[in-house]
Amino acid sequence: MLRRRMSDAETETYQLYYWPNIQGRGELVRLALEDVGAPYVDVARMTTERGGGVEAILRVLEGEGGGGRHFAPPILRASDITVSQTACILDFLAGRHPELLPPDELARTRALQLELTLGDLIAEAHDAHHPIGNLLYYEDQKEEAAKRSAIFLRERIPKFFSFFESVVKENKASKREHLVGSGFSYVDLSLFHVLSGLAYAFPNRFDQVRKDIPLLLALRDRVASRPRVSAYLGSTRRVPFSSHGIFRHYPELDP
Amino acid sequence: MLRRRMSDAETETYQLYYWPNIQGRGELVRLALEDVGAPYVDVARMTTERGGGVEAILRVLEGEGGGGRHFAPPILRASDITVSQTACILDFLAGRHPELLPPDELARTRALQLELTLGDLIAEAHDAHHPIGNLLYYEDQKEEAAKRSAIFLRERIPKFFSFFESVVKENKASKREHLVGSGFSYVDLSLFHVLSGLAYAFPNRFDQVRKDIPLLLALRDRVASRPRVSAYLGSTRRVPFSSHGIFRHYPELDP
Repeated sequence: MLRRRMSDAETETYQLYYWPNIQGRGELVRLALEDVGAPYVDVARMTTERGGGVEAILRVLEGEGGGGRHFAPPILRASDITVSQTACILDFLAGRHPELLPPDELARTRALQLELTLGDLIAEAHDAHHPIGNLLYYEDQKEEAAKRSAIFLRERIPKFFSFFESVVKENKASKREHLVGSGFSYVDLSLFHVLSGLAYAFPNRFDQVRKDIPLLLALRDRVASRPRVSAYLGSTRRVPFSSHGIFRHYPELDP
Repeated sequence: MLRRRMSDAETETYQLYYWPNIQGRGELVRLALEDVGAPYVDVARMTTERGGGVEAILRVLEGEGGGGRHFAPPILRASDITVSQTACILDFLAGRHPELLPPDELARTRALQLELTLGDLIAEAHDAHHPIGNLLYYEDQKEEAAKRSAIFLRERIPKFFSFFESVVKENKASKREHLVGSGFSYVDLSLFHVLSGLAYAFPNRFDQVRKDIPLLLALRDRVASRPRVSAYLGSTRRVPFSSHGIFRHYPELDP
């Protein structure tokens, strides 16, 4: 079966299943849905009476909705199929909404690859405050977090930033304005979110490195001013940053 | 552009770029190449004089070979394109070798999703001995590793194993013999490797949980007896497990 036609996707309401009170990885999916103007329901943010709540996530984790069970949210449901794993969801959405990525197999591979690298950076940003594990509170691993976040800030942020800055710089087909191919893609949206999250969590460190990423900052600002993104960021659909999510601001971790 | 035809792939020699002395994530790519019998060169295992060594990896990381720069190995080169990120490489290979996954868009999404979940498990298996970071030796983070690996063994291994066992159990189209669709796919190869790695690193814990994963163990054994996999495992092309890779056996972490 080939990728579905756009006309299917245009008339469909998606269901997003993600923890209701945090941005988390669900935010990358929300940004893509918002940017294409796709109708969607953020299911777990509805009341249990209306079929929402965390219970709805648990049911779809176990396979409700078709397409088999899932290990963790975010999960996207599109009529008779459910998809999980953030980068996989974005690849799936890009196949239905060419605005997120022009239909081209090489671009698809490149986009997935860069999205997965952003996913690695997100995982490291999370583990900076939770190096021992998600099942313990931050307060129970503060000492270890101090060690891990110091390495993250000193070594890993510059390495990732330098990589993505070079990717944009070398992407002359896009006039050095985008990550993939000659124009906008969903990977630009994810980059916007990662930069916003790191600036929120580690403002001091971010200020030190911003001089090294002029092209990334310009790209971030262009994404923020896309009409639908801008409208979304000002809406109540946007969950605010907090100290429960992936990007957390603990002043002691950002000296 | 659509996925390339098999005939292109059949006549082509791939170049794999990965650290020469460890299995690492490169092993998942090696298994796929070996299982389809694709000709490939494990570039960094050749001498520097012959264009190999770590230097060859560094050049392709910076963009040599086409397709832009990469953040980390493994990287696969196929004539004029290079691809990185393990799950992305496997998705790319599956597009050229239908033996790794029948051409079907929904199966492609499901396979990618499960492969990424295996990738999460691999990352956690690594962080069990390196919770503070890759840039420090294990000996410099032994105390933290004891804490993290205890949680990994107690909470995470059962959660991942139970998930994958259920996926096979519910996959009646494959007679409960495979992870994706009605038959073999590259995800089965990766599962084989993850189970082998965990059994090597944590033999005591693995023995405790093996009763809970009869279908996964049967699948692992079927993969191991595939003729090309079996030949590969007995060859010098196979890098042995060691205490430098992702799966490490430290007796103190597997009480």
